[in-house]
Amino acid sequence: MIILDGKQLAQQIKSEIAIEVAEIKAAGGNVPHLAAVLVGDDPASHAYVRNKVNSCYECGFESTLIKKDDSISESELLEIVDDLNQNPDIDGFIVQLPLPKHIREAKVTLAIDHRKDVDGFHPINFGRMAQGMPSYLPATPFGIIQMIERNNIETEGKHCVIIGRSNIVGTPMSILLSRKAYPGNCTVTLTHSRTRDITAELLRADIIIAAIGIPHFVKADMVKESVVIIDVGINRIEDSSRKSGYRLVGDVDFDSVSSKCSYITPVPGGVGPMTVTSLLMNTLKASRKEVYG
Amino acid sequence: MIILDGKQLAQQIKSEIAIEVAEIKAAGGNVPHLAAVLVGDDPASHAYVRNKVNSCYECGFESTLIKKDDSISESELLEIVDDLNQNPDIDGFIVQLPLPKHIREAKVTLAIDHRKDVDGFHPINFGRMAQGMPSYLPATPFGIIQMIERNNIETEGKHCVIIGRSNIVGTPMSILLSRKAYPGNCTVTLTHSRTRDITAELLRADIIIAAIGIPHFVKADMVKESVVIIDVGINRIEDSSRKSGYRLVGDVDFDSVSSKCSYITPVPGGVGPMTVTSLLMNTLKASRKEVYG
Repeated sequence: MIILDGKQLAQQIKSEIAIEVAEIKAAGGNVPHLAAVLVGDDPASHAYVRNKVNSCYECGFESTLIKKDDSISESELLEIVDDLNQNPDIDGFIVQLPLPKHIREAKVTLAIDHRKDVDGFHPINFGRMAQGMPSYLPATPFGIIQMIERNNIETEGKHCVIIGRSNIVGTPMSILLSRKAYPGNCTVTLTHSRTRDITAELLRADIIIAAIGIPHFVKADMVKESVVIIDVGINRIEDSSRKSGYRLVGDVDFDSVSSKCSYITPVPGGVGPMTVTSLLMNTLKASRKEVYG
Repeated sequence: MIILDGKQLAQQIKSEIAIEVAEIKAAGGNVPHLAAVLVGDDPASHAYVRNKVNSCYECGFESTLIKKDDSISESELLEIVDDLNQNPDIDGFIVQLPLPKHIREAKVTLAIDHRKDVDGFHPINFGRMAQGMPSYLPATPFGIIQMIERNNIETEGKHCVIIGRSNIVGTPMSILLSRKAYPGNCTVTLTHSRTRDITAELLRADIIIAAIGIPHFVKADMVKESVVIIDVGINRIEDSSRKSGYRLVGDVDFDSVSSKCSYITPVPGGVGPMTVTSLLMNTLKASRKEVYG
């Protein structure tokens, strides 16, 4: 059983990016510049954005953080988006979700110029991905693809079962792993809350992508020997032995399941750290105009 | 066993659209106007476009047919696309594929204003569909969805196996039947040329969508009792008893399989006639600005 160490891989990819950026700088080229818009004072959002900005710093990117009070109106936020769209110094930017309830997230996402949409949330990037065109892949799926690729995990002809059909993980993963490419060429089954017998599906899986948001949902008796498991869940459960009173666990019951696996991601330290790497790679692509020329 | 008669259903939907258009006309509203661009002299393309234009006529739409010799350059074709994009009289338009080899189809498809993309081929329409936003659905998937819906075929919790992962049928069908909606809420398995044991997958299916382009690929011993089969294949096979020397058959061996089915589409006369209906419905939506406001 091999534990897929996302923290270490993310660090390695960041080092590679840092070297590339140093070379770009030395050659007098365009240094990637990521902007992040952060609205309100949600502690988790602040932590995510801080992590993204720090990662930019580690890689030698320029970064701009725009913080706004959650009293900002939708039209004010759309103006900020438009300014970032127009600003030739900014290669890519993100608007950290969730947004306050009075702001329509879809409206904001659609307002982002797809050429700067390094989160890969704009429908044109989703559609281009699905149609096999160059695009910005969404962060979590891109991170998973990187993890599979860097570990040379075989995917062709494998049966992959995905749990959860969200726009940001399950559905794009089903598309990416079905496509004629590596990683890909899997036979993919997408399962969700209306699936009749998820255990029966999981027992057939060579690869499981768990993205359902239920702590320890996948148990040892639901998977076959030598399965590859990518656990996307990040769930808080009570833990009185911790100072914080909680700990983070995945959608997979790691302790009981891991011994049956050929590969498995831990939580935390698995898929999580890879998402920031995706954002950096997309921003690097944006600065090189690799996707949209 | 019920045969899903696409010809009859398409006729019924066209009659409904014709009534709506008559009402729009009577109220002095905007009569839907579809334009079609036809390049070269491929007989199949001519037949398809003729059928589309005739269907417009049946429904009271306005239609414009732009025919060009296959010596047209890519930039000349892109100019025509741009004129149609700009023309406020045209609600939607299609460029019939395939195009001559010297013209990049992706370039042309991307040049079509997504608000007039009634074929639903532009990535932004694909992405919006996948993200559950209003969009123009591609013709064949939209036709299949209509067929399931109009026949009240149950889909929730059903296991659906799709054969073929094309951008225009298999992949969008996998998204539509997985989504939280009716028709939808299926557990979908997308199979293709790299699937290890397609028969094993098919034997688990409550619903099969066959879109692989191999005549009579699905045999009776590959499906379970009471399966619902949507056969998207349109394949020519030799038939010396016909004057033409050939006949059209589906991807399913209808004669042996149909008795096991609860529902099955025939070929021809199943999914085929529904695709034109989809185009008309998308054009009606475009004229009402239902998708993009």
